[in-house]
Amino acid sequence: MLTKINHIGVAVKSLNDTIPFYQDTLGMTLAGIEEVSEQKVRVAMLQIGESMIELLEPTSAESPIATFIDKNGCGIHHIAYEVDDIEKVIAKLLGEGARMIDEKPRQGAHGTSIAFIHPKSSNGVLTELCQAGH
Amino acid sequence: MLTKINHIGVAVKSLNDTIPFYQDTLGMTLAGIEEVSEQKVRVAMLQIGESMIELLEPTSAESPIATFIDKNGCGIHHIAYEVDDIEKVIAKLLGEGARMIDEKPRQGAHGTSIAFIHPKSSNGVLTELCQAGH
Repeated sequence: MLTKINHIGVAVKSLNDTIPFYQDTLGMTLAGIEEVSEQKVRVAMLQIGESMIELLEPTSAESPIATFIDKNGCGIHHIAYEVDDIEKVIAKLLGEGARMIDEKPRQGAHGTSIAFIHPKSSNGVLTELCQAGH
Repeated sequence: MLTKINHIGVAVKSLNDTIPFYQDTLGMTLAGIEEVSEQKVRVAMLQIGESMIELLEPTSAESPIATFIDKNGCGIHHIAYEVDDIEKVIAKLLGEGARMIDEKPRQGAHGTSIAFIHPKSSNGVLTELCQAGH
């Protein structure tokens, strides 16, 4: 089932303005920066223990992250749990009547398979399942 | 400095309605439930890897968590990092001009020392520092 928190997604206006807080002030290790054009975001990953902080900067006003920031301001956007068998976890959730944003896993960054649970089925918390690539 | 994510605080209306999702559907281990009367909350801790999900249910309309839910709905409230020397981390933050909600550590649950960074100094994310008790 779930093995750990893979990452916490945080919506920010600017990676450049935010990375120093996590990297220099809090002392996390910057693991990488990449652009995910499909989601219209630039993403920075910072390692903390077995988990990561995922900073999400919108690259366009149509980015879902831009919409989130307009509505809520900058802040925590989602929580992602690592699972060892994503299809099994999705089947269990659907079997229990949960609403999924992704009923089938889709490709995430670095060869991962991901699926989001709808916040209505997870008490208002946008929740991602994430299986490592093979 | 920071060693791991200690917990993610999640504001909920009812522990009873929310615990089954984390415990039964997602398969986390319920570590305990307690009332923190000072904060006017009931708290459930659920273990996931080296971290925990902290569900926070207001016990009064004057609870800070009730105020949060009124404004934002249920959802992620804060992120707490474990540190090995909280006074040193606070001194570093203050030295860099960060605004602290707690400039001195105060007592948390289970003998921990805790301090919150003001969201204005952490890009909108309410951030807690947490040192284990001795």
